[in-house]
Order: sequence, then structure tokens, then C-alpha cells
Amino acid sequence: MTAPERVAGEALPLVLLSGGGGGAKLAGALSAVVTDRPVIVVTNTGDDFEHLGLLICPDTDSVIYAASGNIDSQKGWGRAGESWEVFDTLSALGGPSWFQLGDKDLGLHLVRSDLLSQGGSLAQVTAQLAGRLAVPTTLTVVPATEHPVRTRVQTAEGELGFQEYFVKHRCEPVLTGIHYRGIEQALPTASLAALLEQYGERGFDVVLGPSNPFLSLAPILEIPQMTKVLRQRARCVMAVSPIIGGKALKGPAAKIMTELGLTVSAQGWVEWMRLRYPDLIDTWVCDETDRALFEEGAAADLDVRLAQTVMSTPQRAQAFAQWLLEAAGDNA
Amino acid sequence: MTAPERVAGEALPLVLLSGGGGGAKLAGALSAVVTDRPVIVVTNTGDDFEHLGLLICPDTDSVIYAASGNIDSQKGWGRAGESWEVFDTLSALGGPSWFQLGDKDLGLHLVRSDLLSQGGSLAQVTAQLAGRLAVPTTLTVVPATEHPVRTRVQTAEGELGFQEYFVKHRCEPVLTGIHYRGIEQALPTASLAALLEQYGERGFDVVLGPSNPFLSLAPILEIPQMTKVLRQRARCVMAVSPIIGGKALKGPAAKIMTELGLTVSAQGWVEWMRLRYPDLIDTWVCDETDRALFEEGAAADLDVRLAQTVMSTPQRAQAFAQWLLEAAGDNA
Repeated sequence: MTAPERVAGEALPLVLLSGGGGGAKLAGALSAVVTDRPVIVVTNTGDDFEHLGLLICPDTDSVIYAASGNIDSQKGWGRAGESWEVFDTLSALGGPSWFQLGDKDLGLHLVRSDLLSQGGSLAQVTAQLAGRLAVPTTLTVVPATEHPVRTRVQTAEGELGFQEYFVKHRCEPVLTGIHYRGIEQALPTASLAALLEQYGERGFDVVLGPSNPFLSLAPILEIPQMTKVLRQRARCVMAVSPIIGGKALKGPAAKIMTELGLTVSAQGWVEWMRLRYPDLIDTWVCDETDRALFEEGAAADLDVRLAQTVMSTPQRAQAFAQWLLEAAGDNA
Repeated sequence: MTAPERVAGEALPLVLLSGGGGGAKLAGALSAVVTDRPVIVVTNTGDDFEHLGLLICPDTDSVIYAASGNIDSQKGWGRAGESWEVFDTLSALGGPSWFQLGDKDLGLHLVRSDLLSQGGSLAQVTAQLAGRLAVPTTLTVVPATEHPVRTRVQTAEGELGFQEYFVKHRCEPVLTGIHYRGIEQALPTASLAALLEQYGERGFDVVLGPSNPFLSLAPILEIPQMTKVLRQRARCVMAVSPIIGGKALKGPAAKIMTELGLTVSAQGWVEWMRLRYPDLIDTWVCDETDRALFEEGAAADLDVRLAQTVMSTPQRAQAFAQWLLEAAGDNA
């Protein structure tokens, strides 16, 4: 008996666009099941922010934690077995306590600061951190852009930075608009472009994770050249609905859809995505729960696939990841 | 029976110049025993350094920790009951681990960073941190200067930053010279000048703590205008010898004296201080152990006082602090 031949370098890569919640969970599941394809996870940087003198990259970190088996799966963010010594001291000393920083998490932010101060690019530093946390080598985590893109939320109570809106105000203010500050000057990270170029001759598959379209995917997709870079050599682009049974499993996607006057359903999500990103998506992956929505014939011209997309346990997440890999293969 | 009248505002202040070791211990003891005099602790900023994007002020922090009862008295630095979650993560991730950062300590550095980023001066921020750690209000902690002064050590192995020399290289390289980078542009912190002005009409007493003359006191005393500010209205200036029985209790003072070709004794220390800071010091406080040195008549023209200066227990430290307060009063 000989060792199985490693064919990761041969197979078409899967490119996952991800925020910090469902996307990170999917990245974690992919890292567990993929053996024969490189996976490139492109992370949203619109949530990145400077806090206490440190650059914090919540979505990138969630993906790194999920893909290295370090994520707190109960909370869906931060590290398992986290402690809060620094945060408790900081709070006791009257420091800003609205953003919870665990000790292990802070350790990562400090190392990132140090590596960046040595001149590393965000993509290089992200790769180093992923390596040091033992993310499987089949999976590459790449921040969408090197340029600081900062999601700003216009609300009835004034404009807020993303983390202010999301954490400090718990998404409570009514959202009236969103702006991705700096996105006009941004470009896809050079290392992402190089990766896709390297793998791109024979193409790759793209999956838009079940992430918030407004807060997680838009700050990636609306980077100038990004859809072109993705679409040009993509064999297929699949998008996974974050709306299931008229609700978002987590986070403010449904609330924002309501506030923007959209229909809160998988179909409403499809319509918005088609309008916003015409000619980008080939295949729409929705949850089995929403079968009736698409049997009415309204989406007859669309390739809608139904699956069990709810990643409520590691087993279900991995089964869905496996399903996605096969579905992408079907499109070949 | 009526409550004792609070006379702190009336009595002459005591100004202590302090590094992080013996000086901080003395500051802690003074904070415990002083009831009727304001104490102003002027801290060395030559040890301050930027690490992982944070400004760290080891001597100032040691004084704050000592004066608030939070210092780890076993180690003589850092906080009691410290934990090391962040440092362990940082080390595991390959971050710079030569400088040990406890979790509670890091909490303070992060709050300092935050307050500085809000535009506070180092003196203001130091006062805020001291207040939040409940340093007694009789004691004011003031960094010597706002201007970044950074002690650089010339050694046989090249020039080193202070923390590199002190922590990374454990003071092992042979010292050939010291430079206080930036000191030429520095001035005594405005709030120190204002404090001394406020109290200064009737004068104050100054104590140079038993701190390293080269690494802790010089970066304070050699700030332009500092000796003038101190001397102009000082009723008396007392200096406490860091050399006892021909040795330094802790730290590299004796080693440095040897490397600079000085006699390692309390007398050698007196001679160097007199040459370096002529007309500054009225009273030389040496340990009882060194009685013989000064009975030989060599220091007949000097006001040398002998005391039990070894602060090996809180009781001894407080007894010495009490002795100092009385000795300063004798000079009135």
C-alpha cells in the first residue's frame, strides 16, 4: 500500500468570500473536509478598526480561529477557552469597555501589530498568523484588500463606525445607508490577485458565504476590480443565502433588509444581489426550508439549488461544506 | 473628640525623585506613612519605551503600583496576583517575548494608550491612572518630562536601548557610556513646575531615592532646568545611597560603577554625585553598614547621615520613610 497521492495542487481551488459569522463557520467546515482542493478564503476588511492603538480584524480573525479549530463555537466569535484578565483590568481602570477583548485574542492583535510594524503587508501578516495558529495548509486566508476600507453606517442617530453600530449600539439604530469609506481607492490584495492568477489558468470556483450582504460581502465585492478578478476566470460563482425562512440565523441582515425596504426572504435576497451584482452569480444556494418560494416559478430563469444550509453543529456544517464542494463540481 | 484636622495642604511637600526599584519601594512606604505632607514623586522616563505599539513607562508604573499597594513585592515590579494569558499567547504565536507583559499590567498600558490618543499629556494621563488605581491623594506621581527621553547604553557589544540592555541582555554587556537621547530638548513636565511653584513659596524638601544614579536619576536630573527648578526653592536636598556595603541591593548600579572605573562604595557614590551635580545635594543618607567609611574623616565637610536604609520588609521601608521625613524636618 502506498500513501495517497497529494493532489491539492492539481485540483481547482475554491474561493470563499467571507464575513465573520456564517462565512467563518463555513471556512472552518471546509478546512475540516477539503483534502483535494486548495481553499482561498477572502475576508471582509470593512469591519477592521483601530482600537487602543491596535489594528483589529474581526472577520479575518474569526476565519483564522474557525479554520484552526480555535473559535469559541458557542459564541461564534473569539477563541475557545478565552480569559478576560486584561479586559477586566481595563474596565476597572475606566478604559473603553464597549468592545470585549479576550486575553488570547489580544495576544493575536499584539503580534499582528508587531508584524505590521516590521513592515509586513496585511496579507503577509495574516498568512503568518494563520500559519502560527496552524490553519491547515490547504486553506489560505487573504484579507480582501490592503487599503483601509472602513464600513460606515448611516443611521437615524447619525453616522457610526461599523463596530460602534454593531457592538456598541447592538445594531439597534435604524439604518438608512451604508458607505464603505476608502473603497474607491482600494484594490484587491496583490497576493489574492497573484493567487488567483497562479491557479487561474484552469479557473476556480467561487462561493459567496452566507454572510451579511451589506456588511460583509459588499465591502469585498465593491472593491474596484474585485468582481472582474473573480469573474474573469471563475468556473462558477455560487452564493449562499443568509436568509432562511424569512430570517437571518444571526446578525442584522434581516433587520437591515426591512430598513432598506427589501422583502425579507431568500427571494428578496436573490433579487437584491442580482440588481446589485449583475452577471456575477451563476448559482443561488438556498435552504430547503425555502423550497416553496422557488417552486412558484418566480425564479424559473435562475439556477437555484436547495440544501440543508443551517450549520448548527460541526457535522451539519461539514455536510454542507461537502455538498457545496460537490455542487461546485457539478457546474464543471 | 473631633476628627484630626487635615494639614496636608499646609505642610511642606516632599519631592522624591524615583526610578523603578528602591525609589518605588520608598514611594510606597511614604504613601503608607505620610499624613501631613504632600508627596510628589518625580519618575524617571528614560526607561519608557514603545513596545507592540504601546507606550510602556516601567518606572512610573512601578511607583503607581507601589503607592497603590498593587506592586508584586516579591519581584519588586509588576502587579501582585498577575496572570500571563496574553503573554503566553503572544509567545506561542512567535511574538516578541523578551519583555514580559502581565495581563493586568497590559490593561494599564492599553488604558494609557487610549487616554494619550484622546490628547492627554503624559502627566495628565499618569495622574488619571494613579487616581484610578487609588494611589492616596497625598501622593502625586509626575513623570519628569513630557518630552521623550530614551536612555541609550553604549556597550562593548554596541549601543542598546535601555530595555534591551536591562531586560533582553540582563545588563550583561560591559557598559562604556550612557546617553539620554532627547534630553537636550526636554524640559521638566509643566505640571511638575506648576506643582513646585504652587507649593514652592515656602519651599519643599527633595529626596533623591536610592535609585540607580546612571539609569534612573541622571535622566531626571540632567533634563535642562531640572536641578534649577528643584534647587531654587528646596529647603534641603537629600540623596539616599543605592550602594550599601560596597554592593547594590538590586540592579546593575555596582556593576556599572566598576565598568566606569569608579570605587564601588557609598563614598564612591558620594564622590561621583558631587562631581556630577555640584551644589545640588545638602545631605547624604547612607546605610549604617557603611559607618566606618565616613568615620575616617574623609567626608568631614559633608552632612552625612546614617540610617537603616534597607527596605527588606514593609515595616522597615516605612520606618526608613518615617526617618527620612524627620531628617528632612531637622534641616528646617
